[in-house]
Amino acid sequence: VRKNARTSLEKVLAKLHPADIALIIKNLSDLDRKKIWESISDKSKIASIILELEDSQIIEFFDAMQPNEIALILNEMESDDAANILRLLDQDKVNEILKYMKKDEVEAVEELLHYPEDSAGAVMNPNFFALHEDTTIKEATKVLHKAEDVEMVFYLYVVDDEGRLVGVISLRQLILNPPEKKLKEIMTKDVIRVTVDMDREDVAKIVEKYDLLAIPVVDEQNRLVGIITVDDIIDIIREEATEDIYKMAGTTDDEVLMGNKSIKIARVRLPWLLITFVGELISGFVITFFQGRVHEFAILASFMPLIMAMGGNVGSQSATILIRGMALGKIDSKDLSKVIFKEIRVGMIMGLIMGILLALVAPIWHGDPKLGIVVGCAMFAAVTFSTFTGTFVPATLIRFNFDPAVASSPFISTLNDITGLTIYFTVSIVLLSIL
Amino acid sequence: VRKNARTSLEKVLAKLHPADIALIIKNLSDLDRKKIWESISDKSKIASIILELEDSQIIEFFDAMQPNEIALILNEMESDDAANILRLLDQDKVNEILKYMKKDEVEAVEELLHYPEDSAGAVMNPNFFALHEDTTIKEATKVLHKAEDVEMVFYLYVVDDEGRLVGVISLRQLILNPPEKKLKEIMTKDVIRVTVDMDREDVAKIVEKYDLLAIPVVDEQNRLVGIITVDDIIDIIREEATEDIYKMAGTTDDEVLMGNKSIKIARVRLPWLLITFVGELISGFVITFFQGRVHEFAILASFMPLIMAMGGNVGSQSATILIRGMALGKIDSKDLSKVIFKEIRVGMIMGLIMGILLALVAPIWHGDPKLGIVVGCAMFAAVTFSTFTGTFVPATLIRFNFDPAVASSPFISTLNDITGLTIYFTVSIVLLSIL
Repeated sequence: VRKNARTSLEKVLAKLHPADIALIIKNLSDLDRKKIWESISDKSKIASIILELEDSQIIEFFDAMQPNEIALILNEMESDDAANILRLLDQDKVNEILKYMKKDEVEAVEELLHYPEDSAGAVMNPNFFALHEDTTIKEATKVLHKAEDVEMVFYLYVVDDEGRLVGVISLRQLILNPPEKKLKEIMTKDVIRVTVDMDREDVAKIVEKYDLLAIPVVDEQNRLVGIITVDDIIDIIREEATEDIYKMAGTTDDEVLMGNKSIKIARVRLPWLLITFVGELISGFVITFFQGRVHEFAILASFMPLIMAMGGNVGSQSATILIRGMALGKIDSKDLSKVIFKEIRVGMIMGLIMGILLALVAPIWHGDPKLGIVVGCAMFAAVTFSTFTGTFVPATLIRFNFDPAVASSPFISTLNDITGLTIYFTVSIVLLSIL
Repeated sequence: VRKNARTSLEKVLAKLHPADIALIIKNLSDLDRKKIWESISDKSKIASIILELEDSQIIEFFDAMQPNEIALILNEMESDDAANILRLLDQDKVNEILKYMKKDEVEAVEELLHYPEDSAGAVMNPNFFALHEDTTIKEATKVLHKAEDVEMVFYLYVVDDEGRLVGVISLRQLILNPPEKKLKEIMTKDVIRVTVDMDREDVAKIVEKYDLLAIPVVDEQNRLVGIITVDDIIDIIREEATEDIYKMAGTTDDEVLMGNKSIKIARVRLPWLLITFVGELISGFVITFFQGRVHEFAILASFMPLIMAMGGNVGSQSATILIRGMALGKIDSKDLSKVIFKEIRVGMIMGLIMGILLALVAPIWHGDPKLGIVVGCAMFAAVTFSTFTGTFVPATLIRFNFDPAVASSPFISTLNDITGLTIYFTVSIVLLSIL
C-alpha cells in the first residue's frame, strides 16, 4: 500500500465485501493495516469489517483504541453483535465504552449482556420484524418497505395484543395470498420457538432438525423478545465443534483468543499437563513396584510403551465415539450402557488381534514362546479394559451433568497408563508363575 | 404400540413432524418399529421420515427391502436426497433400484451420482427456481404460485437465453418493486456462485463467509445447474467437523455407518493401531538399547511414562491447534512456519515449568538432587521437541497436499514416544556423565 495510492485504495475498498476486506487486513503488516483503517472514514463500514475479523484480531484492534472511539463504531452495529464484542473485552473497559454509546443502544446491549454467555438470549437479535395478528397483508407489505435496517427478513412473526408469539408467515405466503386478508387468517399457528435461557447448542440442534432459517426466542410469558438467524446457528455449530476438539486435546478455545502470546497459551494448556504429571508419577510408582518383583522385568519393560500407547489410543477412540455421539445427539443418556458394552466388545476384538500379533512378535525378538503368550494375554486384557475406561469415565460425567468433553484424551490416556501397566504386570506375573 | 391402537396411531403420526417420528422410531424395538412403518401408507411421508434418520439406520432399513419397494420411496424424494441415499448402498443394489425408478428421476439421480462424493455437484439440488431475465415481476409472482414442490425458495436466480446465471433477486425485492418491472432491471448482477467440482467444504466456507441462505452452482459454461441451501451447508459443517474429530482420534466416520457391528468397527480402527504397534515396538528397542548402557536405568525407567505422556499430550495439543486452525481457515499455508515457531515457544515454556516441577519432585522420590536436574532437563528437551513434531508433521502433509487430519493423535503420540524416549535417555546419559 503506497502512500500516494490512498484515493484509489479508498475506491477499491468501497467496492469490496467486508468479509474480503477482513481477509486482506489479516494478511497485512501492522503498518499497512493501519493505513487501510485510516483510509476508511465510514464508521458503519468499519463496523461491518470488524464483524468479519477473528475474535483475537478484534481484541487486538480495540486494545489500541480509546473507549469513545470504540463506542462510535459499536453504535453502528446490531445490538447483538455489539454485545458479543463487549463480551470479549475487560469489564472496566466495557463500562467506559457504554458511557459513550447511544442511550437506546446501551439499554439493548446491557439487556443482552445480562443473559448467560451460551444462552439463546445472548446470541439472539432483539431487532426483529413482528406484526400484530390483525394486520392485513397489504399493510404488512407497506411496513416491510420501511423496515430496511432489519436483519435478513424471511419470516414475519405474528404477535397478539400482549406481544405474545401467536404465528408465523413466510414471505412466500405473503406474496401468494390476497392483500386484504389478515395475517391471523393465513399464519401458521404452530411456531417452533425457543426460550431465552435455552443453551445455544440445543437451539442449533432444533434449527438443524427442522431446517429453519430463523427461530423466534420468547421469554417466560411467551412474549417474542428476539430471533436467531441461521448464519448465527452456523457460527454456533462451528464454535461448539471447535470447543469440543480443543477440549479433547487437552486445551480450550480460550487459547484462540491469545493470538501469539506464548505465555498465556501455555497457561491455558497447563492444567491438563499437571493432571498428566500426577497421573504418570503414579504410573512410575507402578513400574518401580514391579521392578523388584519380576525376574523378567527387563524383557517386560521393552513392551511397556506398546501396552501404554495401545491402551491410550483405544481408550481415546472409545471416548471420542461416545462424546461426539452425544454432541451430535446420536447417542442419548439411556444409550450409554449399550455404547459401553459395544465398545468393550470392539475392545475385545482389537485386543485379541493385537494380543495375537504381540504373541507372534515377542518370541522373535526375545526368543521365548512362553513369553509371547504371556505378553499377548496381558495386551488383550489391557486393551479391553481401556475401552471400559474410555466410555465409563465420560458416561459417569454425563450422568452427573458434567461436560463429557472434559474426559479428554490426556485424562483417558493417563488413567489407561496406570491401569494398563498394572494389568500388564499383574497378568504377566500370574501367567509366568503358572506356565 | 398395541395392535388395536392402529387407527389412533395413524392419526398421531399424521400430525407429527417427520423429524419427530424419526426420533421415536430410533428408540423403539424392532417389532414396534415395524408396526410404525406398516401404519404409514403414504410413500412421501415415509420418504420424509427416512431423510431424518441416521445413515446407519437408513442402511439397515433398506437392507431388509426389495429394490422395487425402495424405488417407490426414492421416487418421492428430491433427486439430490435420493442420490445421497443411493451412495450409501451397494453398487449392485443401486443398479437394481434404478431399474424401477421413474425415468426422469433416474436421469437426474444418475447425473448427481456421477459427481465425486464431496463435490458441490454431489450435494446440490438440481431442482431450483430460475427465471429468464426478461420476465416481469408480475409474471415471476405467477410462476412462484405454481412452483409448490420447489425446495425453500428465498432467492430467484435469473438466467439468460443460454441458461447462464446473470443475476439474483430476493423475495423481498420482488415484493418491494413495481410489478411491471423486468427482473434484469432490479436483479443483483454480482452473484456469488460456486462450480460443480468445488469441494463441499469450500462451498460451506463461502456460504458462511457471506451469510447466504443458498448458493447457486454453475458448470464450466457458467450455466446454472443447481443450488445448495443453507440446511445442507449445516449438515456439511457438522459432518466435516465429525470427520476431523474421528480422524484425530485414529478412526474414521465410516465407523458411524457400522451401527452395532463390532467386527466391522474394529476393522475401521485397526490401521491406526497397527501403526502404533510398529512405532511402539521401536520405542521398546530404544528402551532395550539404553537398558545396558545406563547404571541408573531402574530410576530413569520410573519417569518413562511421564516423559512419554507429556510428549504425547503436548504434541497432540500442537497438532490439534494447527489442524483445526487450517480447517476453520484461521491458519493458511503461508502461516505454517509462524505457527510452528509459536508452538515451539509455547513448548519451551511448558517444558520449563514441567522440567522444574520434575527436578523438584524426583529428588523427593529417589533422594538425589543431581538426578532431579538431569531428568528435569531431559523433560524440557522432550516437551519442546514434541511441539515441533506435532506441528511439523501435519505442516509437511499440508505442503504435499495430504489431509493434515491424518496426522492424528495416535500417530503424533507414537512418534513422540520414540523421539521422547531417545531424547530423555540421551540427555540423561550426557548430563549424568558431566555432573
